[in-house]
Amino acid sequence: MQELDLRYPNCPVRNVLIRFSDKWSLLTLRNIERNGKMRYKEIGNAIPDISQKMLSSTLKHLEEDHLIVREAYAEIPPRVEYSLSEMGKSLMPVIQSLIDWSLAHFEEVTR
Amino acid sequence: MQELDLRYPNCPVRNVLIRFSDKWSLLTLRNIERNGKMRYKEIGNAIPDISQKMLSSTLKHLEEDHLIVREAYAEIPPRVEYSLSEMGKSLMPVIQSLIDWSLAHFEEVTR
Repeated sequence: MQELDLRYPNCPVRNVLIRFSDKWSLLTLRNIERNGKMRYKEIGNAIPDISQKMLSSTLKHLEEDHLIVREAYAEIPPRVEYSLSEMGKSLMPVIQSLIDWSLAHFEEVTR
Repeated sequence: MQELDLRYPNCPVRNVLIRFSDKWSLLTLRNIERNGKMRYKEIGNAIPDISQKMLSSTLKHLEEDHLIVREAYAEIPPRVEYSLSEMGKSLMPVIQSLIDWSLAHFEEVTR
């Protein structure tokens, strides 16, 4: 669980934004948004370059930060599904505008 | 200079977005936006928790990614100033919406 930055406890960048602005968090949120509900293995298949360890820690902190919800079904074998929380859903349009900007400026940034 | 992700050369997240979505890039862009033109030392003073090494590499890659412009004046002692490029300026409203979201959900994410 990420602690508040004690020197800058009110900074939205240091304390909130960077919790989901890394590559794996963005790709995980995007894929869950597209598919509604996803299992661990499905997310891993959708992001082949993510390690199991990184996917586990990414799902853990996105859940701790209340951006995704984890539902476990009492079945055999046990079934666990991830979906966006309401707060997570409210974040996605902002993420989409970042992605749209990135697509629009792809050539210019990467040249 | 960050290379294209050869397995996902068209991915806007892997190839563009993550170039500026880290803490130090966001804080550097924000401060330069607020002040118009800034010198290295001024940026360092405005972000006291950034190391000199990190500030130098952040300014270098933001310049390589064409988000900021570095101007050196032939003076003694030499003067160097950083400012947002036009493309950098076009990114800031999107960054601002991310920060606004982060402020609006600060309590919920950090609880």
